[in-house]
Parts: sequence; structure tokens; C-alpha cells
Amino acid sequence: MALIVQKYGGTSVGDLKRIGKVAKNVAKIHSAGNDVVVVLSAMAGVTDQLVRLASQITDNPHRRELDVLLATGEQTTVALLCITLESMGYPARSLLGYQAEILTDRAFGQARIVQINVNRLKTLLSERKIIAVAGFQGRDRKGNITTLGRGGSDTSAVALAAALNADVCEIYTDVDGVYTTDPNICSTARKLHEISYDEMLEMAGLGAKVLQVRAVEFAKKFNVVLHVRSAFNEEEEGTMVVEENTNMEQLVVSGVTYTKDQARITMTKVPDKPGVASKILTAIADANIVVDMIIQNTRKGGLTDITFTVPKTAYKQAMAIEQEIAQQIGAENVFGDENIAKVSIIGVGMQSHSGVAAKAFTALANENINIIMISTSEIKISCVIEEKYTELAVRTLHNAMVLEET
Amino acid sequence: MALIVQKYGGTSVGDLKRIGKVAKNVAKIHSAGNDVVVVLSAMAGVTDQLVRLASQITDNPHRRELDVLLATGEQTTVALLCITLESMGYPARSLLGYQAEILTDRAFGQARIVQINVNRLKTLLSERKIIAVAGFQGRDRKGNITTLGRGGSDTSAVALAAALNADVCEIYTDVDGVYTTDPNICSTARKLHEISYDEMLEMAGLGAKVLQVRAVEFAKKFNVVLHVRSAFNEEEEGTMVVEENTNMEQLVVSGVTYTKDQARITMTKVPDKPGVASKILTAIADANIVVDMIIQNTRKGGLTDITFTVPKTAYKQAMAIEQEIAQQIGAENVFGDENIAKVSIIGVGMQSHSGVAAKAFTALANENINIIMISTSEIKISCVIEEKYTELAVRTLHNAMVLEET
Repeated sequence: MALIVQKYGGTSVGDLKRIGKVAKNVAKIHSAGNDVVVVLSAMAGVTDQLVRLASQITDNPHRRELDVLLATGEQTTVALLCITLESMGYPARSLLGYQAEILTDRAFGQARIVQINVNRLKTLLSERKIIAVAGFQGRDRKGNITTLGRGGSDTSAVALAAALNADVCEIYTDVDGVYTTDPNICSTARKLHEISYDEMLEMAGLGAKVLQVRAVEFAKKFNVVLHVRSAFNEEEEGTMVVEENTNMEQLVVSGVTYTKDQARITMTKVPDKPGVASKILTAIADANIVVDMIIQNTRKGGLTDITFTVPKTAYKQAMAIEQEIAQQIGAENVFGDENIAKVSIIGVGMQSHSGVAAKAFTALANENINIIMISTSEIKISCVIEEKYTELAVRTLHNAMVLEET
Repeated sequence: MALIVQKYGGTSVGDLKRIGKVAKNVAKIHSAGNDVVVVLSAMAGVTDQLVRLASQITDNPHRRELDVLLATGEQTTVALLCITLESMGYPARSLLGYQAEILTDRAFGQARIVQINVNRLKTLLSERKIIAVAGFQGRDRKGNITTLGRGGSDTSAVALAAALNADVCEIYTDVDGVYTTDPNICSTARKLHEISYDEMLEMAGLGAKVLQVRAVEFAKKFNVVLHVRSAFNEEEEGTMVVEENTNMEQLVVSGVTYTKDQARITMTKVPDKPGVASKILTAIADANIVVDMIIQNTRKGGLTDITFTVPKTAYKQAMAIEQEIAQQIGAENVFGDENIAKVSIIGVGMQSHSGVAAKAFTALANENINIIMISTSEIKISCVIEEKYTELAVRTLHNAMVLEET
């Protein structure tokens, strides 16, 4: 008999009928003798509604109070699930973030879990209760309600699974697993049976919306076995996210992802002196803008061009900052481009296979897709291209790289 | 400078515009140098909506979990008020029932406040924070969320005022005070400047919906000055609910109330032996039905008739019980009547004035209204009459008794 942590997302608990389906699923697993902790999101759309309500009052709602407001979403779903389970004759108990003793820092709206005291959870489990924990929320040391940021329920579930030393953390979602790429733009996309934490981290970080990055980081750190499954089709076996040393499929590349949320800024004819690149990027960091990729080319005559990418939402602000910096350091010009996309290939297999990058670049070249920027890590190659080629590039890379097993 | 506890009901916080109005009112009092604790209800209709949602799952929702669900209503309003106050530049802090350390018993759905630990509240007040406390909710000793039952926010406010030793507890509502009777049926009804706790208790218990009975009991016990005011018209001075030894208006009768929620049951030719009345009423009590008025008339030959009233909702059940009892004890017959109403006159002045009852009965008789049952206390006379005469009886008693000052 196992201890299973399950997490259901917003669409899985979107109405009473779906909550009824979740209850049946939970009850079945409990009846088989397992201990079950269920982590729930708010009903689909509810968190957005609450944010809109607050934004009708002010553009900048007080963050502590916004968290109090948002926390009602998950409170509603856990209560409704427990009412449903109890009406079916199953012993159920809802716990809000503070009741489950999920202790966080006090970064309202994006709190990080510091510690979970599992005594109460363990007592309830020993009484054979089904526990429904409100995801996305915790409390700080002073007892204030905190929320963990978008997708935070994934993190709640993984953290609880780690703290309870659960056998598995099942993430029920509206897709039936992790795919090699977005099936909506690539018909040959296929579901992976297994993926490593590192690959999943890259996939999540690069736009695959199945799991929250922080949840995967947490799972990796505490070696929590994640099982991504469909909430609507329990026949589907889903995808296991695990350490790579299990019986991993022998793929060189596990997935292709893309994101259109970046913009590019280039500063030309920058005097190539120590401290100049630092000056350019520090100004951006000071404005709390996250820089993703950076490249620097050397020109003749002690001059260099520096290009970097920032989130599209921060593009205008970053341009204004850099135009000022360019004057200060005597650079020639600053220009930018919002019409870019980043496509990436991801796979632990790349570490032991040469020629992967060359093959990827060739495949893109064959389609006349120009590569504007490149960045690589041990398990990832990312290319910035013109935005209009995004879908073609994804299909091209997927068909060239992923379908091929070693 | 005073410490003021204010309570706003559901219609006063029914939408963002009204919450904005509440915020302005609170801010004004805070700016004048007062300490303010605001207790809020859920937005009008929200608690009913949540109850309906739960009842779509089951007729008998698990009570602990129903309280978790219902508690989201007040959580929403306190967060919205604090977001509003903060956006106006006022330091505000919301506290849920458990955060305000409102400790209750564990009677989910109808919990009673056992104790309030005011340390945190006092610390926040000493920092000049405006505190918004979610009404209607508390926690039991184990940390479970409890709710106080319908109108519980009044009780939350009075209990906080008592625990904090506040100067006044202002109850903002959608009427502008306590009236001598229902203005909708009696055009000469007028607002009282003052009313005693005892009179207010009788008024509340007899259908006046301005204040919850338990809140008035609490106020009386801890001598909390209540000020019933209009949330929509702060010019109105409202009604003070106080001990009677202040400058009370010299009315013999302060108010006339009515209720149509009772039904009458009569058992005829009951053998007049010790223990028989007990048997008749114990059977009703065992079914958790509350008996209000009881009268017993003696007939000839050791036989008696017993009449009592029960809530209309329990009428059929009570009739079935008594038909069985009648057989057991050898009574002649059981019959009942749902078409009754109870009209009452209330006033501390009655204690020192003779002839009040006679005058009331004469007034009703002059309108040909037959009195079916009578019960009296030191400050109240209630008459059961045919339901169709209710409004006429209220106007008759009001005009005969209330308008006349000593």
C-alpha cells in the first residue's frame, strides 16, 4: 500500500461534475488501501477573476491583502471536494495552507516554501482520512497567508510529497502527458513515457506548460517521482519524470520547445574595454529585467557589438535604459526587434553525442531559416530566429532530431 | 480619541462601489485619531450562493467542510476592503477568524465564541493599523474553521468590542435605526433614539431583523454600547442600544413586533393528571422542536385542554407526534392551525404601569380581532391571533400604545 500525493489543476475541478469525477478517482485509490493526499487548484478562471476584481480597485493591489483574496479560490475547491467525498461515505478533511503547516517566506504573491510540518497530516493519514490540501498557499512565520505564484499548486504537491516521503506525486492535468513538442503545431509529436528532471526543467523553462519550473526543481532536489497524467482519461499512462538513470528511452533529443515572449536588443560599436558589458547589463538588472541570452561579436578597431534578449513586456523600458547607456559609453547605436522567437532542442542524450548542434543548424538552414542568436548548455541548444518561422522551425527540428532514436 | 468597532452587513459591502464607501467612512474616523476595527459580512447573497453550491452536491453537506466553504465569503470582503484602504493610503490589515484568535466551540455552522485573544489586535492598533476582521467565523481549539450561524457577524463585532473594551460598537445596516414597528405596515412607525438591551432582545427575538439575538445578549452581558446606524446615510443618527438607566425616552411601550412563523396545536380532553403535560411536551422536545407559548384550560370532570405553538416548519412533524401521544394518554383529539400570527408589545415601562394589558386587549377587541392565546413577561405582552389580522393588529397596538408617552 502506497502513500500517493495527487494534484488536480483548475480545469479538472472546473465545476461540480468534474469535482465529482476527481472524488471518484480519489476514492478508488483510497479504497484500494492507499493513503491519499490531494492538492487542488482553484476552479479554472477563478484566480483570474479575483485578480481582475482587485485590479478594478487599484493597479497595484496591496500584496498581502491580494493573497488573502486569492487564497479563497483553493479554499472553495478543497471544501467542495471534501463535501463530495463525505457525501460518498469517505472520510475527508480539507486543510488550508496554514492548517497543513506549509511555512513560506513572506514574499507575498511569489512565496517560497521554507518548511512543512507534517505531524497533523500524518495523524490524519493514520486515521485513514483523505486529506485535501489547498494548493498555491501557505503562511509565513507571523501567520499571514501567502501564495506561491502562478502554477504554485504543482509546487505545493511536490513539496508535500517530499515532506511526507510519498511513493509518487501524480500531477493530473488537461493533457495526457509530456509531449516531444506541441502537438498543435507538429503532427508527429508524441508522448514521452519518461523524461528526466533536467530535461523537464528545460522544457518547463522554455514554454512547455505541463509543469511549473519550481515544482520540477523541488522534485529533482528531493527525488520525488512525478507522474504527469490526464485528469479526464485515467486509462492513459502519462509521463514519469524521474532521475535519468532509470530505463530512459534512448533518445538523443527528448523535446523541442519554443517561446515567443522574448525581444532582442543590440548595441553597436561599443568600445571594447573592461567593464563595458557589465555596465550595459547591470543597468537592465537594476530595473529588475531578466536577461536571457547574451552574445558579443568583436569588430575591428577595438569596437564590439553586444546583443541580448529581454522579456517582450520589458522591451520598451529596456530600450530606453540602453539608449541612455549608449550615450554614456559612446556606443554608436541601439536597435531592437520584437519579432523574434526562441526554439530549443532538449535532451540528456546530447551530452554523449557529437554533431547534434551541426545537424540542427543544417536542418534549419535547409528551410532557409536564419539563426540570429545561439546559446547552448549540456542538454539544450536554443536558437533565436525570426518569429514568423517559429512553427516551421519547431516541425523541422522535431522531425530531424526527436524522431530518431539511438 | 476612541476605540470604535464597526460592523457592516452584506448589502453595505455588496459591490466594489459600496466597499469604497465603507472605506471612506472608516478612513474618516481613523483620520480623526480614533482606532478602528471593522467587522465585515460577506457580500449580499454570497453566503446563500455557497450554501446552494454545497446543496447541489448533497442535501446534508459535511458541516466542518461547509464552514470552510462559507468562510471564503467574509475572507473576500475583508481583503477587498483592505486593498481599497491601502490604495487610499491608509494602513489596513485583514484578519480572518483564526488570525484574530476568535476561539469558538466546535459546533460547526452555529459555533459560540468561547474566548478572544486580543494581543495581536492590540499590537496592530498600537501601530495605528485599521483592522478588518472577517465576521461570522472563528476557529475551534484544534484550528478548524467554524462559523457562527446566520447574522453571526453582529456577534463577532460585539464580542470584539467587549474583548477590546471598545467605546462603542457601531452596527451599520440597510435601515437607519430601530423602529417602533415595521414602517412597511405602519405609517406612524418612528425611529427610537434609544432602546434598552432587554427591549432590543425581545424585539430581535420576535422578528425585528435589525440585530441578531445573540449579539444583543452578548452586548448586554458585557455592557457594550451598540449603535445601530445606516450604512447609506451617515447623517442619520441611528439608535443606541444601552442599559435602561440612561436618559431613556419615557415610553411605556417601545415597540410592536409580529411574527408569522408559528403554528398552533391543541389537544382536547386530556386527563388532568400529574405528568400528562410533561409527556405531551417532552415528546416535542425530544424531536428538537422548540415550543414557544403554552396554555392550559381546565374543563369539568378532570379533563383539560392543552394548546401550544411550534415553528411552522415543524408543524407536521409535531402533529404526528402528538397524535400518537394522544392515543397513549387517552386524550380526545388533536387539532392544529397554521394560520396564526403572534403580535407583541414590548417596553420596560410596562413594569411600572398597570393597565397596559387591558388597554392592549381592548384596542384589539375594538377592531374585532379575537385573541387566541396570550403570554406575558415583565416587559412583553404577546397575543396569538388569526394570521389575516396581523397588519391591522400591529397598527392598532402601535397607535394605541406606542405613540403615547408617559
